[in-house]
Amino acid sequence: RTLLNWVGCAIGGSGNAAVAHAVAAVAPFVGPPQAQLLGRAERVDAMTAALINGIAGHVLDYDDTHLKTIIHPAASVMPALLALAQHQRVSGADFLNALLIGVETECRIGNAVYPSHYELGWHITGTCGVFGAAAACGRLLALPAPQMLCALGLAASQPVGLKIQFGTDTKSFHPGRAAQGGLLAALLAQQGFTAAAASLEGRDGWGQALSRAHDWTQITQGLGTRFESALNTYKPFACGIVTHPAIDAAIQLRNENKLKPGGIASVELIANPLVLSLTGKTELHTGLEGKFSIYHCIAVGLVYGAAGERQFQDAVVKDPTVIALRRKVTVHPDPKVGAAQCTLMVKLKNGRALTRRIEHAIGSLEKPMSDAALEAKFTDLADGILPKDQTRRVMDMCWSIEKASDAGALAEAAQA
Amino acid sequence: RTLLNWVGCAIGGSGNAAVAHAVAAVAPFVGPPQAQLLGRAERVDAMTAALINGIAGHVLDYDDTHLKTIIHPAASVMPALLALAQHQRVSGADFLNALLIGVETECRIGNAVYPSHYELGWHITGTCGVFGAAAACGRLLALPAPQMLCALGLAASQPVGLKIQFGTDTKSFHPGRAAQGGLLAALLAQQGFTAAAASLEGRDGWGQALSRAHDWTQITQGLGTRFESALNTYKPFACGIVTHPAIDAAIQLRNENKLKPGGIASVELIANPLVLSLTGKTELHTGLEGKFSIYHCIAVGLVYGAAGERQFQDAVVKDPTVIALRRKVTVHPDPKVGAAQCTLMVKLKNGRALTRRIEHAIGSLEKPMSDAALEAKFTDLADGILPKDQTRRVMDMCWSIEKASDAGALAEAAQA
Repeated sequence: RTLLNWVGCAIGGSGNAAVAHAVAAVAPFVGPPQAQLLGRAERVDAMTAALINGIAGHVLDYDDTHLKTIIHPAASVMPALLALAQHQRVSGADFLNALLIGVETECRIGNAVYPSHYELGWHITGTCGVFGAAAACGRLLALPAPQMLCALGLAASQPVGLKIQFGTDTKSFHPGRAAQGGLLAALLAQQGFTAAAASLEGRDGWGQALSRAHDWTQITQGLGTRFESALNTYKPFACGIVTHPAIDAAIQLRNENKLKPGGIASVELIANPLVLSLTGKTELHTGLEGKFSIYHCIAVGLVYGAAGERQFQDAVVKDPTVIALRRKVTVHPDPKVGAAQCTLMVKLKNGRALTRRIEHAIGSLEKPMSDAALEAKFTDLADGILPKDQTRRVMDMCWSIEKASDAGALAEAAQA
Repeated sequence: RTLLNWVGCAIGGSGNAAVAHAVAAVAPFVGPPQAQLLGRAERVDAMTAALINGIAGHVLDYDDTHLKTIIHPAASVMPALLALAQHQRVSGADFLNALLIGVETECRIGNAVYPSHYELGWHITGTCGVFGAAAACGRLLALPAPQMLCALGLAASQPVGLKIQFGTDTKSFHPGRAAQGGLLAALLAQQGFTAAAASLEGRDGWGQALSRAHDWTQITQGLGTRFESALNTYKPFACGIVTHPAIDAAIQLRNENKLKPGGIASVELIANPLVLSLTGKTELHTGLEGKFSIYHCIAVGLVYGAAGERQFQDAVVKDPTVIALRRKVTVHPDPKVGAAQCTLMVKLKNGRALTRRIEHAIGSLEKPMSDAALEAKFTDLADGILPKDQTRRVMDMCWSIEKASDAGALAEAAQA
């Protein structure tokens, strides 16, 4: 599911301006056509592919989330691994194994320093992601332990990402550059390049420089028996997680009652104050602004029964039906309501009143997206980029990766 | 002088194992042969050249030093700039201008956060170097101010380097990767890739995440009238700066008195306690260990009248004459003696006693190396790598860079 979700996001993000700008910037320096840019025509060298696919996979903010640390686990690991798997043939089983090891590594390092590290200003997806990418690639390269230690040391010296970049192209650059840095770390270590053995926990090491508190037991406790990848979650909606309970409620009421926008008189939401402070925008001009408007999020949920990338296009934000409906929404902040909960009330013009309380929104750990919903998300993301039959084939390859003899073929299958 | 000194160091370091390992690691991914690896045969794409030449320039620990911050100013700026100058033709005058802007940028940012940033564990040459490389490359690309701001923002998200890596190959990887990151930042910004405007000083920005104290006025105060590059210094000896006063004294006494090793009865050094704590090694097996032995440093100064790379080869460390002499050296730590000062006493077998007090060692800001000494250092570094006439030509090109119509030709001239 982590693999499928990320591949869908990378295909969906492939046409974003940030990706196009990055491709143009590195074009003069590209090496042999070893690796595919997902959802695009270009084949580039593996080192460049890790960077570009890493930007594409994160640019929509639609990828997977390890809620304990807010790390997006696939963001740095997948592009590095997929690039290496095209340069050096590996089985799907080995690929999947390396992916899990990468996710485990970055999330456990994240657990050891969260929240102090995050509060200092670091974008944890890039700073921990480079460890995940190095560990995953080191595994595919079958590095002996001393060389794996050097790969992790080289990773420690290359943290990428500051939270101040949120809202700019550089946010998605973070996992891309971290993917490339981790891949490079593993390749250098393979050649005998040396690094400090205690790079994480030692004096003048990563923990000292990048966090004010750390609990290193988080890294080793239950290693091999308890898996952080089992805690990974997938976003059903292409916007901030704080809006998800309200969207879930809106879609449920719409579908169960066959609501039509014209029949709705008013909408009221009771939610944690965080919802308004993070997504309180009312005057909207662009699709991106729609992601920061709880009013728009609820309106598209009621009109379309969905809140994917499509519902955050400029045209949808400017649609008169959506505008009319979002003006009917009132939000009541209530600190007694948890950030993962909400109550949505819809009053109809015919006098009926509908209410839905959400305890755990769809996409949460307690109420995960179904495989079918993940496929629908993928299909939606790939729409207009890959033909339908090709989209189907790529999804099938993701689901059956452990049986593939050549994992890299997955990337090739996603060529546009 | 900064340019000449760095080119000599990069040629001298070009055969180091760390450089060879890095070249082997990236070889499968290299793009068009746009840029020369100094002192080597290979031509590679500009992005790769920035990395490899950056490793080569720093690997001998023999490059320039901005003493206020311990930044090695050329380390990240020069490889990035030289790579870009070969990809996009620029005049020597523009090149020199960009080099000064790069040095100014990184040293002023360093001034703003030193010593807090350094004490946290960061290798300041790589963490500030990425800003220098971005600014220098941005200048060569003639980025308008808003894009230059994005280039610096992208640089802020890519700090490279932890002090725990000292003594491993990863130390020299730091300025190499920082050079590449800065070059990439400028190229991305040129294409319209966006980054935060307040990446240094803003909430969740570089200053907050990477330092506990900062004085941003250091960045703007006297900008354009007071130049940090005027404070740059060059190492006459291929070892830690703390040993330099003693080596200077040893060479002066040797040359003035035509000393022969066999005529020396005993040697005594009165020096700051730091000298013994950093360079107190007595049992030596490798040339590298010799750099951390004040005993070896003084012995080679007395035997050879020099302490260049040649005097830290394994064979010299194992030479019976050098071993015999370094066993005659006694060090007296004295906290009243400054780290830049020392007194060296040599007793001869004929009963004479010679004493030399050093206030400022050769290579310090107060007693800079002469141009002729810089040339001798360069010639020594290039010996065995480039033919003598080629070495002469490369040095001449460095001295006259501001008259060159094509700055990149300098790198091509250093092909081995």
